[in-house]
Amino acid sequence: MPAENQVPQSEQGPAKGEQTRTLILETAMRLFQELGYDKTTMRAIAKEAGVSVGNAYYYFAGKEHLIQGFYDRIAAEHQAAVRDVLDRETDLEARLAGVLRAWLDIAAPYHEFAAQFFKNAADPDSPLSPFSPESEHARETAIDVHREVLAGTKTKVPAELADVLPELMWLSQMGLVLYWVFDRSENRERSYRLAARGAKLTTRGVALARFRVLRPLVHEVHELFTDFLPGMAQAATARKKPAKPSKSEQR
Amino acid sequence: MPAENQVPQSEQGPAKGEQTRTLILETAMRLFQELGYDKTTMRAIAKEAGVSVGNAYYYFAGKEHLIQGFYDRIAAEHQAAVRDVLDRETDLEARLAGVLRAWLDIAAPYHEFAAQFFKNAADPDSPLSPFSPESEHARETAIDVHREVLAGTKTKVPAELADVLPELMWLSQMGLVLYWVFDRSENRERSYRLAARGAKLTTRGVALARFRVLRPLVHEVHELFTDFLPGMAQAATARKKPAKPSKSEQR
Repeated sequence: MPAENQVPQSEQGPAKGEQTRTLILETAMRLFQELGYDKTTMRAIAKEAGVSVGNAYYYFAGKEHLIQGFYDRIAAEHQAAVRDVLDRETDLEARLAGVLRAWLDIAAPYHEFAAQFFKNAADPDSPLSPFSPESEHARETAIDVHREVLAGTKTKVPAELADVLPELMWLSQMGLVLYWVFDRSENRERSYRLAARGAKLTTRGVALARFRVLRPLVHEVHELFTDFLPGMAQAATARKKPAKPSKSEQR
Repeated sequence: MPAENQVPQSEQGPAKGEQTRTLILETAMRLFQELGYDKTTMRAIAKEAGVSVGNAYYYFAGKEHLIQGFYDRIAAEHQAAVRDVLDRETDLEARLAGVLRAWLDIAAPYHEFAAQFFKNAADPDSPLSPFSPESEHARETAIDVHREVLAGTKTKVPAELADVLPELMWLSQMGLVLYWVFDRSENRERSYRLAARGAKLTTRGVALARFRVLRPLVHEVHELFTDFLPGMAQAATARKKPAKPSKSEQR
């Protein structure tokens, strides 16, 4: 829709473009937090960021895309923050607990926003849901972290569960996120305790997967989520594609 | 707070009192659906029901109490509706599937209301949450249904899990309710399919509980919910009280 005052990225160079993109995203997040998501307009974001409305729309096709940008950013920050614990620990519980703790650390500044934004993201059919096709990039980055949690542990994971466990672990992380959204304890102390308890429980669950009789149940639980949550189905289909590009090619 | 135009129940007789209570509750539910929960006032409910404001407050101390009344009513209707399947079926999957289906049937008229009301009930610390101390009566009625689902099945349930399984089954019913709230498929057809799948999966899970090695995990999952959801903890404490009154004394 906006055209005349649009500034193509190529004329600015990638560094300038990235700067403008970041500026718009950060301004939007600040306004979302101050005014609420519903009341913040693209026009207000552009004005506050000191860019033209057309320029704002060049980088983000709408408010929903700003939220996707925010999800991607949280996911990327998380991926970087877990390096330390994943390079150091080989124990599954320690790895998973560290990963969940790192997420709570990174998300802390957005807690108030998350509580008021929740109603927009709770609907699985909303593009703002973590399960939506639109959130796939952020979701895949987050699931990749859990793939690495499993891959680098000394705990033996049955090959037939290697595909489904990371997605189930990410689902339980979504359970933690849901809890955190409503957590009013000081410094989200209860969420940190839930992260530790959840990591312990998941580790016990994975250890039990050595019993062959249980594996069909794990698959069925995974299938249930895949069949009933929109984005999960897509992720499962994508996973079944034969020649998967390497991580660096994907990003 | 209201006093002068308050009509004590004893002067009306219990039948009249019950009628007025039902009238206020039904009027409130209709207004909640038409105007939204947040915008409906006790004054508007009283006016629409043709009773004095004082009289409305005599029966319900506030809007939240009307919602509790609504929860109690749904729970009681559900308890009556499951008689048929519970008296007929002895197969666990059939019993559970019937119970979940009956809930979807009963809740159908309130689907639109549930979607807009969701934001008030999603917060576990809200008195309107199904996990709140205030919702205990409706919750216990609902958990009782699951106790009966298990008690009347030919599937053998380990004694040490008899206390925790009904609460976990109710939790998975809450998962179904959450899914249903956002279900836009025609006649909630997807929710009915999820109910059937969930019943199948739960039945497999219960069957696996015959393996002793799994039971600690079931207890840990239950403990996790009990420790982190407000009302669950209370229910667990209540359950541990030695001399439990019979069902008829409790109601």
